[in-house]
Amino acid sequence: MLPTGPRRLVILTEGQFGIHDAKTALGVIRYGHDTIVAILDSTMAGRNLREFWPGFDIPFVGTLDAALDGPGRPDGLLIGIAPTGGRLPPAWRSIIRDAIESGLDIHSGLHQFLGDDPEFAAAAAAAGTRLIDYRRPPERMETAVGRRHLPGKRVILTVATDCAIGKMSVALEIVAAARRDGASAVMVPTGQTGMMIEGWGVAVDRVISDFTNGTVEWLVEQGEARADWVVVEGQGSIDHPAYSAVTMGLIHGATPHAMVLVHKPGLREHEFDHLPEASFPIADLAPFIDLHERIAALVAPSKVVAVALNTSLLPDDEDARAAIARIAAETGLPADDPVRFGADRLWAAIRGAVEELPWV
Amino acid sequence: MLPTGPRRLVILTEGQFGIHDAKTALGVIRYGHDTIVAILDSTMAGRNLREFWPGFDIPFVGTLDAALDGPGRPDGLLIGIAPTGGRLPPAWRSIIRDAIESGLDIHSGLHQFLGDDPEFAAAAAAAGTRLIDYRRPPERMETAVGRRHLPGKRVILTVATDCAIGKMSVALEIVAAARRDGASAVMVPTGQTGMMIEGWGVAVDRVISDFTNGTVEWLVEQGEARADWVVVEGQGSIDHPAYSAVTMGLIHGATPHAMVLVHKPGLREHEFDHLPEASFPIADLAPFIDLHERIAALVAPSKVVAVALNTSLLPDDEDARAAIARIAAETGLPADDPVRFGADRLWAAIRGAVEELPWV
Repeated sequence: MLPTGPRRLVILTEGQFGIHDAKTALGVIRYGHDTIVAILDSTMAGRNLREFWPGFDIPFVGTLDAALDGPGRPDGLLIGIAPTGGRLPPAWRSIIRDAIESGLDIHSGLHQFLGDDPEFAAAAAAAGTRLIDYRRPPERMETAVGRRHLPGKRVILTVATDCAIGKMSVALEIVAAARRDGASAVMVPTGQTGMMIEGWGVAVDRVISDFTNGTVEWLVEQGEARADWVVVEGQGSIDHPAYSAVTMGLIHGATPHAMVLVHKPGLREHEFDHLPEASFPIADLAPFIDLHERIAALVAPSKVVAVALNTSLLPDDEDARAAIARIAAETGLPADDPVRFGADRLWAAIRGAVEELPWV
Repeated sequence: MLPTGPRRLVILTEGQFGIHDAKTALGVIRYGHDTIVAILDSTMAGRNLREFWPGFDIPFVGTLDAALDGPGRPDGLLIGIAPTGGRLPPAWRSIIRDAIESGLDIHSGLHQFLGDDPEFAAAAAAAGTRLIDYRRPPERMETAVGRRHLPGKRVILTVATDCAIGKMSVALEIVAAARRDGASAVMVPTGQTGMMIEGWGVAVDRVISDFTNGTVEWLVEQGEARADWVVVEGQGSIDHPAYSAVTMGLIHGATPHAMVLVHKPGLREHEFDHLPEASFPIADLAPFIDLHERIAALVAPSKVVAVALNTSLLPDDEDARAAIARIAAETGLPADDPVRFGADRLWAAIRGAVEELPWV
């Protein structure tokens, strides 16, 4: 069982705020239900998140003590990075130990489980705090059984042209827009950040590979028990040299009625820090969409019904709108940036397209 | 480190010889370097393997004692099944405990590790025998880095239209034919049966899904250090609802120069015991081949250069040869059944086709 919020958290990004790997921090800040007391990052001390994200008033602090001394003492430290390979940066050990000894729960999405670390486990036992490893897989070890969706349920999966460009954010924005529209909708969290936000799910990249499809199939079954519109958080991309196996398990485990393709205009290659030995270009959208549909159809028919753009590389709104229009024309699909410009139009387009699919 | 043979083995198939799940037994018998003293299966006691496979003189015995009492006492018991989900049939516990107490090593490819079972571990410690869990993953936890093959190396992957139809056998037959032809060749074992035969490798379906591609990439690097022609044992199929994630990790982790498609004429659906809730047809070959090439090309170019047929559903040789001719015409590719009719011609066709690939 995962702990349920709301909590009062310090988020640790020490030296890594603002770069790719801090996506856990940014996801929890933007979409979580917790109070974020401070961001612990000595390279940013004295600054405030509102400098980067207007409307988010969260101070950066340089030491754990500074976070503890402020008003509204935190009850947890959340590790705000998801580095390639999921290991703990060695320099963070003393910060985590200090946090435990200060009585904070530790929320971690690393592959390296803090609960299995003898030093941390002993410290937590002594302090009476919890080490919560969101990536720890369920005991369940089952291959997929070929389950079909329940009547009336609509399953949507976010897929993408790269990892870490917004599949979770898009899923959350679609669900929020669906709920505003009066629909019964839920996101199925398949990664640690989504789990920290929603309080359930499985970090699918952590399960034994034989059970990837089977775990996703089971998560979708749980999603169908919670709502009619089931929006599954995707992982990786089908063309990512490192993560495509997980992506394939999402597509064939979820057997989505429809997919939403997430794309980041201006990004030319898969992030170098994931793939240090060669460069791999971002795919052309039209054939990439076709290939998603052919791959999905190996198990169950599916269609890419919309393109959700992450226009964060285009600071000017007009440039972003032009990119959206260009990609809508190029793909023949509704396109928008749901984080930047709101998800209501994209949701309406998705809902309409899904209801017209012959297999729904 | 895996134990190296040759060993003297009893193979346990109790009640499951001759069915799908006994593929581990059949693989080790056909391709292994060990002496097989007996097959332990009370439903077959008194019979001999040569009734099914001429040339293989191995008695079936009904009890472990019968295997121990014969000439040439065994030193190991090998669990000869690979059931869906990889769990130990409960009825086999007492047989395994008796084998341990009789001084035999236990060779297991199950997901459920015998070495982690307190009863078995205590018995093995008392008897001074070993519990060898071939599926236990390596400590290494690394995502793929985008590695390129060394100059002069040729990497081939076996892919298929279903699981358990012969990808490992085809890989072994190709390597044997290559060696007869004077080529430097090695098979890269990616499953427990291949590991039992070759004495190295990783059961890729057991690694954490985030490391599927990375583990295969690393195995290919080891294969390149052993030989010039590196034939990677495939797993699952891209259209298998349960196992496609693992298959994707093989394709993008190995980045093969070429693929050999394994197909079983006459098989109409994926095996029901893997997918109890729905039926899934076997793919049409031509579009399936094209889709393999498009999926592979997401990371590195590759071509299906031959079709290796498992004609075991066609008892008559003439029917088998007609199926081979039909599929060669249908696909425009060289085709043969390398297990039934020998692999030399298929190897020659593969070698020639690979050397002409523009990316080799």
